[in-house]
Amino acid sequence: VVFRGWFDPHSQLKFITDIRSAKAMSLLSLNLDPGVLDWAEACWYFPKTREQFRVSGTLNLITATCNETSHQQARQETWQQMSDNGRIQFVWPTPGADRSTDPQAFAPPAPDQKQPSENFCLLLLIPLAVDHLELRGEPQNRCLYTSIAGEWSMAQVNP
Amino acid sequence: VVFRGWFDPHSQLKFITDIRSAKAMSLLSLNLDPGVLDWAEACWYFPKTREQFRVSGTLNLITATCNETSHQQARQETWQQMSDNGRIQFVWPTPGADRSTDPQAFAPPAPDQKQPSENFCLLLLIPLAVDHLELRGEPQNRCLYTSIAGEWSMAQVNP
Repeated sequence: VVFRGWFDPHSQLKFITDIRSAKAMSLLSLNLDPGVLDWAEACWYFPKTREQFRVSGTLNLITATCNETSHQQARQETWQQMSDNGRIQFVWPTPGADRSTDPQAFAPPAPDQKQPSENFCLLLLIPLAVDHLELRGEPQNRCLYTSIAGEWSMAQVNP
Repeated sequence: VVFRGWFDPHSQLKFITDIRSAKAMSLLSLNLDPGVLDWAEACWYFPKTREQFRVSGTLNLITATCNETSHQQARQETWQQMSDNGRIQFVWPTPGADRSTDPQAFAPPAPDQKQPSENFCLLLLIPLAVDHLELRGEPQNRCLYTSIAGEWSMAQVNP
């Protein structure tokens, strides 16, 4: 996935996905028991600064049928900010299914620029912990940030 | 983790880890029920070729007490190929514990270059599936490779 920016409150990390993708289907099946199995981590390594970030938290999949207004608005805005090339992938044949042999299947008419495809989902990661490792330190520095009831605390730990 | 090369048979992906690290402790606790919860994925994205690889399979943690000769030999050789800077981290204070306040804790004598530290583990990922996505294609190309009883098969799927 590609990081698509932040969503407030709580500096949620924003991604997009197709409701027909394995990751969305997996999350939708987990919704039977929300908050237990939707734990996820996003990891970055920045080669220039030699820093590693591991952001952990819970996922929230915003589909076309979600009722929360701010979520639907963010879903719509994110769709509108995408390129035609990005948007058209949501009306391609089902991801992960046997390759379509129809040469026209991947060249459908461009979808509406304003109204998101039914397949288009926002995926929000609500950060609850951050493991930050600086390899450049002498020896190295590592901090664990933890959010409990919205309050962040920090602890220095051994790398 | 850093990819440390291949281990044959079956082109296993080689990593190293500290037995005191969260990932090793998690795997050791899973050994009560091996083969079920040790599924893992290694993902790469190559920006120049715009290719994405997701290698899935099971993990095998090779500790100081493993009996398999070829595994112990690989563990020893990997240790010997490392730099002093890499080796010394395995005799540092416990990773993830409260930061040590002893200024000498991170400057111990260099460990033996031949005999691996007791804390030093090899981590092998036995690949059983590969999801290969080429974003450069027109539209894009995606192949799923699957190994069943050591025989690999390939299927072209929609991106």
